Amino acid sequence: MNTVRVAILGGSGYTAIELMKILLRHPHAEIVAVTSRDRQPVSDYHPSLFGRLDLICEPFDADALKNHGVQVAFGCLPHGASIEAVGPLLDRGIRVVDLSADYRLRDPQQYAEWYGETHHDPHNLAQAVYGLPELYGDRIRTARLIANPGCYPQTAILGLAPLVSKGLIEPTGIIIDSKSGVSGAGRSPKLTTHFPECNENFSAYNVGKHRHTPEIEQILSDVAGTSVQVIFTPHLVPMDRGIFSTIYATPTRPVGEKELYTALREFYHGKPFIRIRDGLPATKDVMHSNFLDVSLRVVRGKVLVLAAEDNLVRGASGVAVQNFNLMHGFPETTALH
Amino acid sequence: MNTVRVAILGGSGYTAIELMKILLRHPHAEIVAVTSRDRQPVSDYHPSLFGRLDLICEPFDADALKNHGVQVAFGCLPHGASIEAVGPLLDRGIRVVDLSADYRLRDPQQYAEWYGETHHDPHNLAQAVYGLPELYGDRIRTARLIANPGCYPQTAILGLAPLVSKGLIEPTGIIIDSKSGVSGAGRSPKLTTHFPECNENFSAYNVGKHRHTPEIEQILSDVAGTSVQVIFTPHLVPMDRGIFSTIYATPTRPVGEKELYTALREFYHGKPFIRIRDGLPATKDVMHSNFLDVSLRVVRGKVLVLAAEDNLVRGASGVAVQNFNLMHGFPETTALH
Amino acid sequence: MNTVRVAILGGSGYTAIELMKILLRHPHAEIVAVTSRDRQPVSDYHPSLFGRLDLICEPFDADALKNHGVQVAFGCLPHGASIEAVGPLLDRGIRVVDLSADYRLRDPQQYAEWYGETHHDPHNLAQAVYGLPELYGDRIRTARLIANPGCYPQTAILGLAPLVSKGLIEPTGIIIDSKSGVSGAGRSPKLTTHFPECNENFSAYNVGKHRHTPEIEQILSDVAGTSVQVIFTPHLVPMDRGIFSTIYATPTRPVGEKELYTALREFYHGKPFIRIRDGLPATKDVMHSNFLDVSLRVVRGKVLVLAAEDNLVRGASGVAVQNFNLMHGFPETTALH
Amino acid sequence: MNTVRVAILGGSGYTAIELMKILLRHPHAEIVAVTSRDRQPVSDYHPSLFGRLDLICEPFDADALKNHGVQVAFGCLPHGASIEAVGPLLDRGIRVVDLSADYRLRDPQQYAEWYGETHHDPHNLAQAVYGLPELYGDRIRTARLIANPGCYPQTAILGLAPLVSKGLIEPTGIIIDSKSGVSGAGRSPKLTTHFPECNENFSAYNVGKHRHTPEIEQILSDVAGTSVQVIFTPHLVPMDRGIFSTIYATPTRPVGEKELYTALREFYHGKPFIRIRDGLPATKDVMHSNFLDVSLRVVRGKVLVLAAEDNLVRGASGVAVQNFNLMHGFPETTALH
Repeated sequence: MNTVRVAILGGSGYTAIELMKILLRHPHAEIVAVTSRDRQPVSDYHPSLFGRLDLICEPFDADALKNHGVQVAFGCLPHGASIEAVGPLLDRGIRVVDLSADYRLRDPQQYAEWYGETHHDPHNLAQAVYGLPELYGDRIRTARLIANPGCYPQTAILGLAPLVSKGLIEPTGIIIDSKSGVSGAGRSPKLTTHFPECNENFSAYNVGKHRHTPEIEQILSDVAGTSVQVIFTPHLVPMDRGIFSTIYATPTRPVGEKELYTALREFYHGKPFIRIRDGLPATKDVMHSNFLDVSLRVVRGKVLVLAAEDNLVRGASGVAVQNFNLMHGFPETTALH
Repeated sequence: MNTVRVAILGGSGYTAIELMKILLRHPHAEIVAVTSRDRQPVSDYHPSLFGRLDLICEPFDADALKNHGVQVAFGCLPHGASIEAVGPLLDRGIRVVDLSADYRLRDPQQYAEWYGETHHDPHNLAQAVYGLPELYGDRIRTARLIANPGCYPQTAILGLAPLVSKGLIEPTGIIIDSKSGVSGAGRSPKLTTHFPECNENFSAYNVGKHRHTPEIEQILSDVAGTSVQVIFTPHLVPMDRGIFSTIYATPTRPVGEKELYTALREFYHGKPFIRIRDGLPATKDVMHSNFLDVSLRVVRGKVLVLAAEDNLVRGASGVAVQNFNLMHGFPETTALH
Repeated sequence: MNTVRVAILGGSGYTAIELMKILLRHPHAEIVAVTSRDRQPVSDYHPSLFGRLDLICEPFDADALKNHGVQVAFGCLPHGASIEAVGPLLDRGIRVVDLSADYRLRDPQQYAEWYGETHHDPHNLAQAVYGLPELYGDRIRTARLIANPGCYPQTAILGLAPLVSKGLIEPTGIIIDSKSGVSGAGRSPKLTTHFPECNENFSAYNVGKHRHTPEIEQILSDVAGTSVQVIFTPHLVPMDRGIFSTIYATPTRPVGEKELYTALREFYHGKPFIRIRDGLPATKDVMHSNFLDVSLRVVRGKVLVLAAEDNLVRGASGVAVQNFNLMHGFPETTALH
Repeated sequence: MNTVRVAILGGSGYTAIELMKILLRHPHAEIVAVTSRDRQPVSDYHPSLFGRLDLICEPFDADALKNHGVQVAFGCLPHGASIEAVGPLLDRGIRVVDLSADYRLRDPQQYAEWYGETHHDPHNLAQAVYGLPELYGDRIRTARLIANPGCYPQTAILGLAPLVSKGLIEPTGIIIDSKSGVSGAGRSPKLTTHFPECNENFSAYNVGKHRHTPEIEQILSDVAGTSVQVIFTPHLVPMDRGIFSTIYATPTRPVGEKELYTALREFYHGKPFIRIRDGLPATKDVMHSNFLDVSLRVVRGKVLVLAAEDNLVRGASGVAVQNFNLMHGFPETTALH
């Protein structure tokens, strides 16, 4: 198999470093360019790469990337900035896996509502494929533009998809109580993520207002074939990485744990990264891996789904490489085990 | 005011050390005895007390405590062990604030069901007062035996009491998604609380089975005047202390945040330790304090109550001293600010 | 005893909040003003004070503070800014406990060298008293301006003072390997103190260049009566608070642990906050307290001194209140136990 | 290249799980057996392996391992237990990489002194090769028994080897101030490693008595060609993994940082896992990697060496696989990048 030449756009943050570490282990990928505002060695941003990846970051320039022979660009830019880069790359035949939120919401109106800005690239938005391999694997294979899914949404969507697709739970009133490690907030220093503020602290934020809400609802509605509505409450946990979602739903009829587990196991049969577990999940069990662990409980007539993932791997850069593997016909697990 | 002579039963654990630190600051309390299986200096168990409290622990002996002139005993024993100690103390006229779960559930049958043992002291159980000052202040003043409330239950009960008492929310289907620091699991080393296991980890445990469930329901049913039923999901957070509960309830009629906030403010008017906050609470804001912070949100028709406390202070030893203050007519906040 | 009216200058940081919490417990101190660039409630900076201290911050104005009847001002300003405030306060008869580094180095030339700025207030610098009560208690009582000591220096100075004063160790080649919790770096968000950067990380910084070096040497030289020279290596520990110093010195003659311990015990006889411990210290044993714990070992002919403190209490705000107590004739431990 | 069949002895601890994760990524290794006292699935001990390694642990039996076709056994047993297993394996032609301390000290007398037990396998001890590839690579290639090095010693030895080998520093009076994450203490729950005890805590332990002292001295004496003597002080850091050593030595003649850096760079020329860094190292830069990062500083005439590694990878299981690679002629970095 040939080696695919890839670029990382926006090389200074956490999804970028995670992606680079995974790709450095990938036998069929070669990182040929990393973009950043400042021209400095990648290892100045990420000392862990010292001696491993000796590239100098360069400002984004679609032509330059084309000249580097880049075939796939992974976008690790903040939302808004991605929109500027995607069009020029696609125009030059470079496929894009965009880790930002810019191409996730199909409806530009909804983007405007939740992100506070008009979407300037509706044309490419229309052809973007939501990069959740367990749901959209076939379309991912041939996609030119992948909207890599959000970290929280994956736990909610993958935990609930088998149940809503079978109509086992009510599509509304679903409560998603999620907890995330601090790397999910990105690498820009802020008071809320200053160590002595968030260490030894547990708090909620953006209650009822988090931008992942419409993303979760869009995909679950897709799967359910009906409008799904969720109450999503994110919390900040004093740890580097990991997302844990405790989900509460109302069954459409009396149902036992066994039947629900069967629904999950059938739905994810043959999917290498979804682990259906009898015991309760824990973020440490999936740390630094692309696994998403799911358990189920029925308590006093409510269905509880518990799902855990590593927000930087499964929740971002790992699933991006999983998408990359599908796009090139590599085994889905390449570089991810 | 005179000084009250107190004893700590079971001096080796976290609620005991917390209690001793608070009582050492109390102008009207003197620790005259600490019990423990081994006769060793208190500061061998708790080096932080070195040079501050130079008592030698002694095995529990009700007569010896009486001879020490003990007027109030704080029980920091594990459940089951407390039952053995309480009767003999009450018989000798020593009032007891019991921090274990032994006298919290009024129905001995329920105790047997959730704690797996027959309750051997139904006589004293019948006269125990649940030590939640904001609800049972009057009875606490004259009580001989206080069943100090559980850590999780306080966040749930105090967060919901104003709403259930006014019939603003449905009494069933209430979801209590709680998160606790690791000290809540006690001081006995276990694999699940071994540092490299629970650090950088977030997990759920005892889903639908936690013993605080009947305690929450008993008190809320009391307040509501009708049977309250909850789904309680505890989680472990990699931090020393703090409990955060995110509570989801269904309003009995369409209701706004303003009306709900008013209900809370009225209910806790004049209560020095309940802080109704417009912003979202965080465990660090109440760390090492006896405050319980509560906020409210309405999201898509559901009522969200968010409550935070320090599990060792408000959740155990602080409220124990608050009860002690009420029992002796000291200002409620003595040694707690 | 009368109540002393105090002000906090620079109320937004960690030493300020720590100071306010201690002073709120002080029976003879009343916080009447808090200064800050922005006029906003103190509890907006520090939600933990919500409902406890309802002052609105005001910009610094020496006349306004005088009008408030302020008798003592605690300076929690960054170095450089303190110099602007101290003179005007002293001129109005307000005594100052300055927690910044501005008045610690007696030699303005040395200040210029290590802090990169000319010292603009040499007049008041000349009368400042270094606020280490165990060494300078008598002068502190009557001082108008206290230069509150640095966090690291206290562990080094108090650990070594008994040994250098008796000539038991060589005054040069002393190695001070110190480790600090992250709050020591202040409350301004920076990449190095961003949670996902410093959590699960241990690192050294400012090796051989830290500004506390001349402070340590100045005071130890004072005590020794000869020039003391140290190699000081600070490290960052992923925890909120606590400083631990492991100090290596060469004895001037063969000496045993017993003799060294005796020297320590004699030197600190009657000092309530210095605890000489046979066992090894740990930062958690002194957390949230004004204690400084010290142990000694002799290993292969070298003398090891191990000292631990809470950097925000003993290392800053606690010792500031200890100084305040001495200045007013209050018992030294008031509000600090 | 053929696949080598390997066994893990003592599969329940942290070095075992780390080793299994690395070997699962190794293209030329197959884990065919894992031993443990209890016959239970490996994933019961390590839920992170669920769905990845479906072996059932079996009690140690050299014949059974031979029948499995095991060619190399990695010993993750506690010291003492390893001695029982090594002989029978070697007798059956199975090569052993022993991660315990049992075969590290060449002198059985020294083993008796530091480990409190007579060494019962002096015969095999005599042929064991100390598994530090940067020093003993040639002997490792053909060794039948590798004594995999200790975690602390690697930072000390690799940091100092270039300097002692060239006689640039005095061989005695070397101070090694080391700091380790908690996983270094193993997986058996103890009070000192109970989360609420060691979280938010920094402490020293085994000062002057740690068993890694003679190991460090033995190898450095080897390299120096003269007796090296160190003062070794280990500390516990509230983090999962990582070791940081700050080393202080006296130069034999006035020397600058440049010359010392040159000595390091020349010594480790071509060694893929030793990174000589101009900036200061940090444990997070080497986390989950087999790198050991080293920096140098000269401060007031003393030479400071700062070295960081991941104690479970470079400090144990990573270097074990590096040795395994050398033993089979695989590229040294296989599965380690």
